[in-house]
Amino acid sequence: MLYMVHMQVNIPATLPRSEADRLKAEEKAYAQKLQQDGTWRHLWRIAGQYANYSVFDVAGNDALHEVLSSLPLYPYMAISVTPLAQHPSAIAAN
Amino acid sequence: MLYMVHMQVNIPATLPRSEADRLKAEEKAYAQKLQQDGTWRHLWRIAGQYANYSVFDVAGNDALHEVLSSLPLYPYMAISVTPLAQHPSAIAAN
Amino acid sequence: MLYMVHMQVNIPATLPRSEADRLKAEEKAYAQKLQQDGTWRHLWRIAGQYANYSVFDVAGNDALHEVLSSLPLYPYMAISVTPLAQHPSAIAAN
Amino acid sequence: MLYMVHMQVNIPATLPRSEADRLKAEEKAYAQKLQQDGTWRHLWRIAGQYANYSVFDVAGNDALHEVLSSLPLYPYMAISVTPLAQHPSAIAAN
Amino acid sequence: MLYMVHMQVNIPATLPRSEADRLKAEEKAYAQKLQQDGTWRHLWRIAGQYANYSVFDVAGNDALHEVLSSLPLYPYMAISVTPLAQHPSAIAAN
Amino acid sequence: MLYMVHMQVNIPATLPRSEADRLKAEEKAYAQKLQQDGTWRHLWRIAGQYANYSVFDVAGNDALHEVLSSLPLYPYMAISVTPLAQHPSAIAAN
Amino acid sequence: MLYMVHMQVNIPATLPRSEADRLKAEEKAYAQKLQQDGTWRHLWRIAGQYANYSVFDVAGNDALHEVLSSLPLYPYMAISVTPLAQHPSAIAAN
Amino acid sequence: MLYMVHMQVNIPATLPRSEADRLKAEEKAYAQKLQQDGTWRHLWRIAGQYANYSVFDVAGNDALHEVLSSLPLYPYMAISVTPLAQHPSAIAAN
Amino acid sequence: MLYMVHMQVNIPATLPRSEADRLKAEEKAYAQKLQQDGTWRHLWRIAGQYANYSVFDVAGNDALHEVLSSLPLYPYMAISVTPLAQHPSAIAAN
Amino acid sequence: MLYMVHMQVNIPATLPRSEADRLKAEEKAYAQKLQQDGTWRHLWRIAGQYANYSVFDVAGNDALHEVLSSLPLYPYMAISVTPLAQHPSAIAAN
Repeated sequence: MLYMVHMQVNIPATLPRSEADRLKAEEKAYAQKLQQDGTWRHLWRIAGQYANYSVFDVAGNDALHEVLSSLPLYPYMAISVTPLAQHPSAIAAN
Repeated sequence: MLYMVHMQVNIPATLPRSEADRLKAEEKAYAQKLQQDGTWRHLWRIAGQYANYSVFDVAGNDALHEVLSSLPLYPYMAISVTPLAQHPSAIAAN
Repeated sequence: MLYMVHMQVNIPATLPRSEADRLKAEEKAYAQKLQQDGTWRHLWRIAGQYANYSVFDVAGNDALHEVLSSLPLYPYMAISVTPLAQHPSAIAAN
Repeated sequence: MLYMVHMQVNIPATLPRSEADRLKAEEKAYAQKLQQDGTWRHLWRIAGQYANYSVFDVAGNDALHEVLSSLPLYPYMAISVTPLAQHPSAIAAN
Repeated sequence: MLYMVHMQVNIPATLPRSEADRLKAEEKAYAQKLQQDGTWRHLWRIAGQYANYSVFDVAGNDALHEVLSSLPLYPYMAISVTPLAQHPSAIAAN
Repeated sequence: MLYMVHMQVNIPATLPRSEADRLKAEEKAYAQKLQQDGTWRHLWRIAGQYANYSVFDVAGNDALHEVLSSLPLYPYMAISVTPLAQHPSAIAAN
Repeated sequence: MLYMVHMQVNIPATLPRSEADRLKAEEKAYAQKLQQDGTWRHLWRIAGQYANYSVFDVAGNDALHEVLSSLPLYPYMAISVTPLAQHPSAIAAN
Repeated sequence: MLYMVHMQVNIPATLPRSEADRLKAEEKAYAQKLQQDGTWRHLWRIAGQYANYSVFDVAGNDALHEVLSSLPLYPYMAISVTPLAQHPSAIAAN
Repeated sequence: MLYMVHMQVNIPATLPRSEADRLKAEEKAYAQKLQQDGTWRHLWRIAGQYANYSVFDVAGNDALHEVLSSLPLYPYMAISVTPLAQHPSAIAAN
Repeated sequence: MLYMVHMQVNIPATLPRSEADRLKAEEKAYAQKLQQDGTWRHLWRIAGQYANYSVFDVAGNDALHEVLSSLPLYPYMAISVTPLAQHPSAIAAN
């Protein structure tokens, strides 16, 4: 089941740089693992912003929340979720 | 080059139903042709709304505008465009 | 799987009253059928508005969209959907 | 009498973690007590956010404010309240 | 129990003037009856707008919705409701 | 002359608690004095928020600003003011 | 007493042109009379919009509402009012 | 003197097509004349929208309003204006 | 040439009081000098807010920016500018 | 390919002044280099704000993001991007 997810990263200036760097590295590793297993189906940078549009393919709302709330940068992100359904004009199944 | 496009369809009540049906049929045919040639890479229905999130793969801003403004329902849609760049954590190229 | 759904009804002044009345009667019958089979788990009127907050229990995003887009008043409603997950402090399962 | 309540938790980065953990534990215990006595009728996590939608069943506006303002995390939450009335198409009484 | 109610009147240009005048007269009579019986405790015009701030004193959410939805101009108003509680610094009871 | 005033209190986490407590006590005393002399005609808590709706009865805009800007919590409040006029359907004079 | 008033004119396409022209002429005459007697102290066009910023000098909120609601174009304007007070750094009295 | 101007065209469905076509042709001719004489310095289509960003070079606010309000499509456009100043890091004079 | 300017002052809690007081005194002196030479034509306090509406009379956009960015409190203000043109119904020239 | 870019600079009060000055100097040098090579085609100050409207001419979305995210002040700016296409009434090519 697919969800469009918009993530805006807001790392506070008070977070020590080393901690921020560690979190970003963990985020990247975790994001790549999730992409490889098909959970994080798409990940795009929004041009000019520390933000992304992503598409997740998970079993449902609980699975989505578990994945998102496990992101290392989760405490520093504003996330909005849009549930996606099959479009009648789409030539591919979701 | 990829763009996230949000389309909200607002067909006015004054449009005759037959005209609306004709436009929707043309829209569907055109959307499927664009998907088949790879221009309209993704098309998802937003659950509960007459709206969609789409990803287009075109040569640039002019090509995008030409494609979007040629949509049969274009006069009846509110469209917003977000340019997408390669995300450094993405495992696939855009 | 649960979804919070906000529906705002906007019946245009140009819709003949008899047609509006027919749609409202169909909407009520359909809403009650969906409540009886457990799909439309909660339905609350927002005080002072022709709007409601509802909770739907469906198999997923596609099922939700099918149910919502089948509502007789669907063409005249502004709908927003929020996917709900199990809250760690809730004493009941969703 | 029912109210839809949206709570968004914003714990400031300056709050010591031990204090935050203590407040969260107290919040959970209090939330469960209120659920058990029927005051906090529903509690749902909003997928992807440190936020919830809740339904409270209280005697009125004063009782609602007393319950909400007694939440251990109250100083760190943005709360909005929507009064709910019986929906004419609902098959259950509020 | 008190509620702050904001009403914005939007009478469509297509409503015949005689019908609008009839509704306004009924609205005025109904508003005055509700004020006399203590339900509509305060009624203030917002300077420069066809809008008002009102305070209603009713038994609860259902009673409020019944009163508001019975207003002759109800179909032509955008209404928002804010539940009011006793303020700890107020010298009078609500 | 009446004004609807909405006050949202935002006390920064950096303000020492003793200072905050002192300001709140002064605010309460001042608010009660203004209520007793008829300046602060109504004071209602907005359920679930550290905010209030108030009605002030003052000689005019300058008097209103003087009263509001003298509130001990004034530096920590977001205030919005709506001038009220006599409503033609009101049974009481403002 | 001064008020900043923002007026946005929205004449519906359905209003006959002759009626619109008549209203505009009346509006102009009325605006000039109010300027001459000192009530409508300033009147500025917002560049690029069918809108204006105005300053009114009236006895109070009731007088302001009476003046504004008597404008011939009042039914076709969105008006917002901001009460102005004497600024401590101003060299002229309001 | 430069101004950034955002124009959103909203031609109502009730305008006869021939009238709309005539206005668009006049708009195009007028826009090109203003570009040729240096008044309308830049004109860009916003991708996916019947809207543009434009830069005007005029003597001041009055000249700007005269130019904009003379546009044949002016009655059907929502226009917002941002005054531009010389940027200290710009290598060219405005 | 006239501009409507809205200024909202947001002095951060971290600014030492003596520094804030010094800036406010400088701001007042500068504001009065600009009023005396006719640049800052009007200065009004918005009732209930640490904000003002002002009208500036300057040679153009560059002069306006120079004046505003020289304000001692400029780093602590949110400023929005609206260019004003001669209104056809105004009896006085701008 | 052209993009309209709006940049709002928000340098936090906690950034040491020397560091802020260094970043601003680097930003200026970088901005001028990009203007000289034609990438940053236009750069305008928004009157009264620490913000600018800019037009970039780059190969596409990835190039735009690379340029913007390399700005020395990038961590302290809120940036929004609007892709521009050739306007049919423009007399010059983009």
